[in-house]
Amino acid sequence: MTKETRVKRDILGTPITKTRTKLMVLGSGELGKEVIIEAQRLGIETVAVDRYDRAPAQQVAHKSYTIDMKNAGALRSLIELEAPDAIVPEIEAINLDCLQSLQDDGYNIIPNARATYITMHRERSRELIAHEAKVPTSKYAYARNVEELRDACEKVGYPCWSKAIMSSSGHGSYFVKGPEDVETAWRIANEDARGQGDWVIVEEHIDFDIEVTELAVRHFDESGKIITTFPKPVGHYQIEGDYHASWQPAEVSAKAEENIYKTTEKITNALGGLGLFGCELFVKGDDVWANEISPRPHDTGMVTMMTHPPGYSEQGLHVRAVLGLPIPSIKKGGFNIIEPLMPGSSHVIKSPYDGWDAEYSNLYEVMNMYPQSAIRLFGKTQARMHRRMGVALALANDVQEAKVRAEKMAHAVKIRIPGKPFLGQDETRKHLVY
Amino acid sequence: MTKETRVKRDILGTPITKTRTKLMVLGSGELGKEVIIEAQRLGIETVAVDRYDRAPAQQVAHKSYTIDMKNAGALRSLIELEAPDAIVPEIEAINLDCLQSLQDDGYNIIPNARATYITMHRERSRELIAHEAKVPTSKYAYARNVEELRDACEKVGYPCWSKAIMSSSGHGSYFVKGPEDVETAWRIANEDARGQGDWVIVEEHIDFDIEVTELAVRHFDESGKIITTFPKPVGHYQIEGDYHASWQPAEVSAKAEENIYKTTEKITNALGGLGLFGCELFVKGDDVWANEISPRPHDTGMVTMMTHPPGYSEQGLHVRAVLGLPIPSIKKGGFNIIEPLMPGSSHVIKSPYDGWDAEYSNLYEVMNMYPQSAIRLFGKTQARMHRRMGVALALANDVQEAKVRAEKMAHAVKIRIPGKPFLGQDETRKHLVY
Repeated sequence: MTKETRVKRDILGTPITKTRTKLMVLGSGELGKEVIIEAQRLGIETVAVDRYDRAPAQQVAHKSYTIDMKNAGALRSLIELEAPDAIVPEIEAINLDCLQSLQDDGYNIIPNARATYITMHRERSRELIAHEAKVPTSKYAYARNVEELRDACEKVGYPCWSKAIMSSSGHGSYFVKGPEDVETAWRIANEDARGQGDWVIVEEHIDFDIEVTELAVRHFDESGKIITTFPKPVGHYQIEGDYHASWQPAEVSAKAEENIYKTTEKITNALGGLGLFGCELFVKGDDVWANEISPRPHDTGMVTMMTHPPGYSEQGLHVRAVLGLPIPSIKKGGFNIIEPLMPGSSHVIKSPYDGWDAEYSNLYEVMNMYPQSAIRLFGKTQARMHRRMGVALALANDVQEAKVRAEKMAHAVKIRIPGKPFLGQDETRKHLVY
Repeated sequence: MTKETRVKRDILGTPITKTRTKLMVLGSGELGKEVIIEAQRLGIETVAVDRYDRAPAQQVAHKSYTIDMKNAGALRSLIELEAPDAIVPEIEAINLDCLQSLQDDGYNIIPNARATYITMHRERSRELIAHEAKVPTSKYAYARNVEELRDACEKVGYPCWSKAIMSSSGHGSYFVKGPEDVETAWRIANEDARGQGDWVIVEEHIDFDIEVTELAVRHFDESGKIITTFPKPVGHYQIEGDYHASWQPAEVSAKAEENIYKTTEKITNALGGLGLFGCELFVKGDDVWANEISPRPHDTGMVTMMTHPPGYSEQGLHVRAVLGLPIPSIKKGGFNIIEPLMPGSSHVIKSPYDGWDAEYSNLYEVMNMYPQSAIRLFGKTQARMHRRMGVALALANDVQEAKVRAEKMAHAVKIRIPGKPFLGQDETRKHLVY
């Protein structure tokens, strides 16, 4: 392995020749698909890896492999064979010890093995946010039984959230309004817990105005030093812990925006490495609280596929950063900023069925609704109930109008699997017009 | 063959499943690569065909084939095997009789076999422009010997251009200033002529202000009728008959713009079918003269990869149109218009070498020069002298600044093949800063 890694890059070669520059994505979903497309447009050789065949990113890559990425032997075998210039994890189900040992051997893991390890678990992220980055986050405490839960709630203060540590997507969570809810919260958390000895985390309830994602990107400057560049904050909402709609720019005060950049910079500095990070924050007035971090393009950042100039989507920025290429920006208030060309929004297109070989209908109407709007269909062969199959994207002169447009488009798409009738999405919580 | 063809489309399926919608490009260069990428983003199954392996579009398609597309048997065999919903010729070296017979069998040739046949030859195009579309074009006449050439020049008027009919890229052309140049013009045309009996065409010299490309796109409206939508005219210059730089919007008067749309609509109506056409026109004041037509995305239209919203590049528009999907636009002066988000420009990146496995250098500087700028490297494994290997793309608040930016970026890219030093482009004719 004599790969050039982690230096400012001046040279790219030709794909599928000995001069190639090579990028591998581990996980081949819709975010990886766009990473591969952006790399292809720079003549990068691309390799897409997933645990099942025909995954979205595999469909656009030069090469694809289907392996169990939790299996250290399989993962190391493939990476030693392909020897990519950058290895870009897109999912969390990857053998972390193997990533660490590959990094020790000189492979360029994005952003680095430690950041991947920390951000994989909500608790490690929280410890990093609170104690290493030292930025505001909601108060929290752990509990192992109902008595400890009562103490934890008292400590954090009512109302608060009780969450099973090992669960995901909102299962096992309960909104604890007062002492009378503690026993119910314990029962709910335990019904969903995955095994003996699992802890419950109690989190302060932040009565935020808006939830945002800051897509901070760490990349080399001309002198070879790593600096951070900031797209404008993305506003978003989630439903049952899953991304549903996002827009850019988020409606936050100038002071809050500055706090978002400062907070995000501290967190991403603590994590280190190159690439784009999705930092979720709560904003109330001028104040921000860090919530979660992903060391890679973020679901809510899909809006930048439409709002940023071509090549500057969150995936395009990630490709530039991880390969050591520059990210030109404008200086504003002491920060390196990427401005959207226009306000825009994205809204998920979710499957109403479990099954395979989905068809998407009413597309003439959907794609004709608004100028400067588009849909993306990810090409997933398997449709699971509520699985994200595509996204509607809209630009408009103001962000509120863009939100309405993306929502209307997404809800007008009808989906079926063979033998079933076409159905639209039925989720309407937090929506503007549905 | 029971393919749904040439109807307004409401439904798309899932790639690599039985519900798929399939698009095939014949010719897999840089324009085809972007066609495939735009199709992939809609979950279309893609097939890229070329006469050599590792061609740009083949690198991003689901499937690729390498065949001699002039061989009717090979072409028919492949198309009958794959049975695509749309067949998109990207080059001219295709067996035209075979395309016609495939169309007769019900295959959806874009825009149609006749348009492909007509636009393949300069003379057939000119006859269509002058006598079928009945729009202004430069005066012209044919000559088979030096006496006829003298008569033709008199008829067209001095100064004029004498061109060998079967030549291309400016070879065999001569600028005839007066009667004293006729014999030289005949000699030059014949030196380059490819065989006995070749004609010479004499064309009026149009002293144009600007050369533009109108990227008119024919697509279905809600009622299933074919209508035409117009991106803003693209200004461009060529060097030795080959695309060098382009920008959008072109600097033309409101009246000229209207004439460009009207002229282009007549020509594309005469050709028929679905898809985007690149119509080259000369503009002087408010007047326009039609020059050449390509029934597909056009080299000069690459600027729309940056100026139009994502998904609305000339290739994105082509994909929508050929599949029967809609193209939303704004109504302006009675025309369906697509406005660029910002003024922009593109400039070619050409190889200074013959060879393989090119490397591209000075990219940190190039990619860091301007915000909202980008390069695309096409991933061509073979670099021929002056072959287009990539393109620089820039946005700016005015088109003049965008031109300067794209030119500076393109000229800062250095290229080598193994064993040679890095060299930049040496072409400076018609340039703004070089």
